[in-house]
Amino acid sequence: MDRIPILKLGEALLVTIQVDMHDRLAMALEEDLTTRIVDVAAKGVLIDISALEIVDSFIGRTLANIAMIAKVLDAVTVVVGMRPAVAITLVELGLSLPGVRTALNAERGMAMIRSLLDAEGMAPGEEAEGAA
Amino acid sequence: MDRIPILKLGEALLVTIQVDMHDRLAMALEEDLTTRIVDVAAKGVLIDISALEIVDSFIGRTLANIAMIAKVLDAVTVVVGMRPAVAITLVELGLSLPGVRTALNAERGMAMIRSLLDAEGMAPGEEAEGAA
Repeated sequence: MDRIPILKLGEALLVTIQVDMHDRLAMALEEDLTTRIVDVAAKGVLIDISALEIVDSFIGRTLANIAMIAKVLDAVTVVVGMRPAVAITLVELGLSLPGVRTALNAERGMAMIRSLLDAEGMAPGEEAEGAA
Repeated sequence: MDRIPILKLGEALLVTIQVDMHDRLAMALEEDLTTRIVDVAAKGVLIDISALEIVDSFIGRTLANIAMIAKVLDAVTVVVGMRPAVAITLVELGLSLPGVRTALNAERGMAMIRSLLDAEGMAPGEEAEGAA
């Protein structure tokens, strides 16, 4: 397999990572996601990693990269389905996944994206400017 | 990988097939999907095959099996993301995917599941009884 499929669901893009991410696949995913975010004007990216038994520093960096790219393109990234053992390892390794939001499962992740968009729609720019 | 992840989104379950389906994986998917349909009382199953370059008679039969099992459990199955070349091959091989509904992409598939459920909700049992 040379590409990880990206599904559009409403305003969000959904990616399920099921295979080991080698360099080329990770770069292809970053590229494809970036193109799709722009093409469909996606506001959210949901990445399911429930199939991953190990998240090493390379995958962690890939996820953080995707989140940063998506943020520049005005989309939020939510990583869902992390296994308990993976969460423990991440903390032990000191990998904090900067810029990456997490949710327990796909359903909650979608709800998170929706609520973030709703909050944006209700108070445009207010949060970013830190109005008090 | 020993399991294909199944995501719950609303009343539907979403499966993205990204790897070659050998016997054991197909059986595991059937089993897992059946269990999940019952566990979460899912009304729809969305199977994305956009990553598959080839759908042979084994995968075709697996999809048809899943659709039949889901139907018995009162859930509709929609296969989405079929590549043009796959559609041509299916027809040339005479594989008709009995009981399997198809939609162009995940978004339309979700809409199809929703509209089928809406129709059910509005006229419970009427369709099945063939009332005219």
